[in-house]
Amino acid sequence: MTNMNASAGDSLSLALGALADPTRRAMLARLAQGEATVTELASPFDISLPAITKHLKVLERAGLITRSVDAQRRPCRLRPEGLQPAADWLEGYRALWEQRMDRMSEYAERLARDEAERS
Amino acid sequence: MTNMNASAGDSLSLALGALADPTRRAMLARLAQGEATVTELASPFDISLPAITKHLKVLERAGLITRSVDAQRRPCRLRPEGLQPAADWLEGYRALWEQRMDRMSEYAERLARDEAERS
Repeated sequence: MTNMNASAGDSLSLALGALADPTRRAMLARLAQGEATVTELASPFDISLPAITKHLKVLERAGLITRSVDAQRRPCRLRPEGLQPAADWLEGYRALWEQRMDRMSEYAERLARDEAERS
Repeated sequence: MTNMNASAGDSLSLALGALADPTRRAMLARLAQGEATVTELASPFDISLPAITKHLKVLERAGLITRSVDAQRRPCRLRPEGLQPAADWLEGYRALWEQRMDRMSEYAERLARDEAERS
């Protein structure tokens, strides 16, 4: 019996876990438009500043954003290349869902044809 | 101030959360080869059967697998189309990381050229 149960702290798991929250995804969408301060990032959300900071820490730990250490404003920046491993993992399954979609539309076409022949 | 903090139970968050675990990703990789019983899915892992069952429930709730209710073996099947929303979300950022990669290789080429000119 091989132990395939790798640490949940691996970078792919961290990235996917960070993305599994709608507030954090909305923050990344905002940062895709350009860098933003914590206050700017917080403004659309009806949640506390400590909660925002916690979300930012999750994103930073997952390698999806960076924060400048020297500048006083400490703007956050998207680190888009941090998303690539998750996208690559999912792409490995694309052929499977596309085959499924093809089979489903073939089936729907066959049903429609049978229906037309009967009537 | 708009409340953009949608429920973390939305289907995209559920799918990403389910994927944020190496054991669950390994189970999906196994199911991509074909249906499997719980015992078959459990065999490569050094974890308890209740833990395996819990992982399967997370995957099922996220719409990434299905389990037959009638058959005695109750095999699990991959539901690959459940992965598509997560892949679509990530694809929205592909242009950003590709631009970044292009800029990084341009920068590396410029450094190499400058170095060659100096020597």
